[in-house]
Amino acid sequence: MAYNIDRNARCAVVGHGSWATALVKILLENERNVGWYIRNRDVLEHVRKHGTNPRYLRDVRFDPGSLHLSDSLDEVARDAEIVVLAAPSVYLKTTLEPLTEPLGDKFIVSAIKGIVPDDLITVAEYVNRRYDVPFDQIGIVSGPCHAEEVALERLSYLTVVCKTLENSRILGDKIRTDYINVGHSTDIYGIEYASVLKNIYAIAVGIAVGLGYGDNFLAVLISNGAMEMSRFMSQTYPSNRNTFASAYLGDLLVTSYSQFSRNRRFGLMIGKGYSVHSAQMEMSMVAEGYYAAECIMKINRQRGVDMPIARMVYDVLYDGASPSVSVGRLTGRLL
Amino acid sequence: MAYNIDRNARCAVVGHGSWATALVKILLENERNVGWYIRNRDVLEHVRKHGTNPRYLRDVRFDPGSLHLSDSLDEVARDAEIVVLAAPSVYLKTTLEPLTEPLGDKFIVSAIKGIVPDDLITVAEYVNRRYDVPFDQIGIVSGPCHAEEVALERLSYLTVVCKTLENSRILGDKIRTDYINVGHSTDIYGIEYASVLKNIYAIAVGIAVGLGYGDNFLAVLISNGAMEMSRFMSQTYPSNRNTFASAYLGDLLVTSYSQFSRNRRFGLMIGKGYSVHSAQMEMSMVAEGYYAAECIMKINRQRGVDMPIARMVYDVLYDGASPSVSVGRLTGRLL
Repeated sequence: MAYNIDRNARCAVVGHGSWATALVKILLENERNVGWYIRNRDVLEHVRKHGTNPRYLRDVRFDPGSLHLSDSLDEVARDAEIVVLAAPSVYLKTTLEPLTEPLGDKFIVSAIKGIVPDDLITVAEYVNRRYDVPFDQIGIVSGPCHAEEVALERLSYLTVVCKTLENSRILGDKIRTDYINVGHSTDIYGIEYASVLKNIYAIAVGIAVGLGYGDNFLAVLISNGAMEMSRFMSQTYPSNRNTFASAYLGDLLVTSYSQFSRNRRFGLMIGKGYSVHSAQMEMSMVAEGYYAAECIMKINRQRGVDMPIARMVYDVLYDGASPSVSVGRLTGRLL
Repeated sequence: MAYNIDRNARCAVVGHGSWATALVKILLENERNVGWYIRNRDVLEHVRKHGTNPRYLRDVRFDPGSLHLSDSLDEVARDAEIVVLAAPSVYLKTTLEPLTEPLGDKFIVSAIKGIVPDDLITVAEYVNRRYDVPFDQIGIVSGPCHAEEVALERLSYLTVVCKTLENSRILGDKIRTDYINVGHSTDIYGIEYASVLKNIYAIAVGIAVGLGYGDNFLAVLISNGAMEMSRFMSQTYPSNRNTFASAYLGDLLVTSYSQFSRNRRFGLMIGKGYSVHSAQMEMSMVAEGYYAAECIMKINRQRGVDMPIARMVYDVLYDGASPSVSVGRLTGRLL
């Protein structure tokens, strides 16, 4: 029997970064009560007392009366039928560690753009394996959507991905607002990987900008990133997907071009000569692409897809390769 | 018998705008002598005397000794075997009017991104019909390439398109430099239309930016522009083209995102409330997309491709439609 999400299912968000904060804001436009797991006590108390997240999207005001705030993951999970994961992939396992509540009868939504390190699997795969959640109880919410613009209520498009379009529609109704348009898809694999890969390509763009390459070259680099993304997906998991759609190409574009892109900013520092360590110190947020670059290279060892851009980023970030020499060599590989 | 370009064929450029100026600079990196037809006497005299174009890319210096400058189109055409057309499409017919020299035994290269108005055909088609030049003697040079970055010698990629890859390679050798990488294609139809359509989409992007839409929305709009472009080409002239390649998607990206894009700038003024007429007055250069918007709507009357973005731009520019209402309506059509 297929799992059907109940229209009245209560939602909870796990995480307190900028994207988690934006998702709570979005959900509260439609739901009377939203659970929110915030592990950090100071942040939790601040949200409870002032109705704002002191660290991210500080201008977004919440009515604490509509929030079920807790630093107990079990409590938050117990009271929700839909659990939205929005912590950086690199911290996902430690974030979920305190959980003893079973997830097998819940619907789990990943809003995470990354691979689970060590396991080298996507978040959907991890939730399935580790928590025995069947794939028809797992969904994805994907951009192109920088949280900062959600805070500003600028029109953005989210794609909801579930095994069945029916569940995707019910979930979509919970996040559709005046400033959020919702699209639907069933391509969990493709959209998870697209959102992982785009962060790597945004780092490549940042590196090129930092080295002084101009707009003409960036357009070539990003087009080739789109091709590389499309090639990876069609060679590893063929499907009738339209990779020009927002959840694939659009997500790559916003991450590569937007001033809000932390992955591009991280790459920019590398291109300007910062060491990987100093660039990380300068960033107050996690650049998912840094971890993704290593995971994808490991995953691709078996698959053998031709990925010159992801390889360049890996060589620069993990192998001490010179950014200028590596990008220079890459220029001969682009179409 | 197929026409083969002679490796030693002399080149001449027709036009003195920024792209024509950049092409002369590029050709001079490989050729000892380049013809240059400049109709305007003041500009011609300035180039002859000072070795710079007084109006565009003023920092680019030419050795007048390597230039065969003339305000006689016949003279320039007579002395060249390869004639590169680089005038705005809307002025192409008047630019070529003084020509009495036959072109039938020459190789004609179009570096123009537009439709010939009234005739509603591409430049390649016009050259073929009006000057009896067979299609195997017609080529295209396409970006993503803003002339301003050629002036700065920032690495850029050009795609050379000819009926045969052999001619494309010989032509490519004439424009390959340290800062110009060259790709090849035989898709004259597709690349001509891509370079026409992308200007319309860049105006759409400008309008949206002028209205206050953010990066998240732009990524969706541009992805949908790429889909619309791809749909137009596959429905009107199916072929095995890879529309992710630089000459299609890359050209759309640089025109949509670059600060050097005059089409985006033109749209921006419209979005901010300028009338079409005032926006045109403010621009010192032709925004090709303005003319393209009308031509494509006329061409599409018979073809009936679904083109909501091009339609929106047409309605705003030619039908007095409100930019905010029109973009608002469009948002419901995007994926």
